[in-house]
Amino acid sequence: MKERGTLVVVSGFSGAGKGTVLAQVLARRPDLYFSVSFTTRAPREGEQDGVNYHFVTREEFQARIGRGEFLEYAEYVGNYYGTSMQVIREKLERGIDVVLEIEIQGAAKVREKLPEAVSLFLVPPSFEELSRRLHARGTDSEEKIQQRLATAREEAKEIVNYDYIVVNDTVDHAVEEILAILTAESCRKERRLHLMEGV
Amino acid sequence: MKERGTLVVVSGFSGAGKGTVLAQVLARRPDLYFSVSFTTRAPREGEQDGVNYHFVTREEFQARIGRGEFLEYAEYVGNYYGTSMQVIREKLERGIDVVLEIEIQGAAKVREKLPEAVSLFLVPPSFEELSRRLHARGTDSEEKIQQRLATAREEAKEIVNYDYIVVNDTVDHAVEEILAILTAESCRKERRLHLMEGV
Repeated sequence: MKERGTLVVVSGFSGAGKGTVLAQVLARRPDLYFSVSFTTRAPREGEQDGVNYHFVTREEFQARIGRGEFLEYAEYVGNYYGTSMQVIREKLERGIDVVLEIEIQGAAKVREKLPEAVSLFLVPPSFEELSRRLHARGTDSEEKIQQRLATAREEAKEIVNYDYIVVNDTVDHAVEEILAILTAESCRKERRLHLMEGV
Repeated sequence: MKERGTLVVVSGFSGAGKGTVLAQVLARRPDLYFSVSFTTRAPREGEQDGVNYHFVTREEFQARIGRGEFLEYAEYVGNYYGTSMQVIREKLERGIDVVLEIEIQGAAKVREKLPEAVSLFLVPPSFEELSRRLHARGTDSEEKIQQRLATAREEAKEIVNYDYIVVNDTVDHAVEEILAILTAESCRKERRLHLMEGV
């Protein structure tokens, strides 16, 4: 029997530093597959097909919905976004660990369809620090920042549904914790009992 | 709210290399408390009180039983062996992670009394390798080795009750896995939800 891969679902507040942390996790574990979403929105400057997203037409997206290919999908501001069940399943069956960065509602749907998924939520060390980071980025108006903080306070209520909470106090520390979670999950009894077969 | 420590229960087949692996885990994580058992048997050459065991008299041991101090205890060949609940609880409350090396029956009792304990079972990469290691030690007769292997086959049935299986293919690898499990467990939602208090 071959060991199946682990599906790791990562969510976090806007401004918690998911992008930076996950880029380093992937640099340290090049064997991981980082799930790339499908979208019908147009590529932005510098975005590459198959790297940032799989860019597809509305017709193709709907055909994939029809074939039940999505683990989850949603429509935002007139564009579809979705995660392909087919690709993820194929990787997991080949024993490859899959990382899926996804917002809270999407994570809930994934957990429903694949209860064996491991989920983690990345948080800043405090809300004061989150506020500081959002201001430091300098990309949002004060009103927008207050909106993001209010959203984060709402989202905090959902963290109870995740398996792990990773604190991004420093990027290195958060990366170490995520790598440890990946290693520990691969040691779970459920994944290794097959080693005891034939005893 | 202070984060409580994690109690990690470690079992493994005789010959799986528990001693070597745990010594290196403790060297890498000197903040861990390695639980020392109480016993009424006499110290052997080189054994130190408070390091290998807490050596106590039969009267003292029975008084401790009477006070309900033991998480688990058993009598083997006329001597008592037991794990103090009091010491472990005090360390956990102070936020210290505790490692407890214990055989399968003892581990079952610990799990019953402290269901939040995390348990891991150390296995050699295969039974062929276990047999090879037992022969290589050169300390047991062939009959004794066959007995140990038969016991291991019996014990293998209990592994399903453990949370994690750690494979001791190399000591370094097993140590890495145990350290990762300790880190991952400290990231569990249950231990960190207090970070979201006051949001």
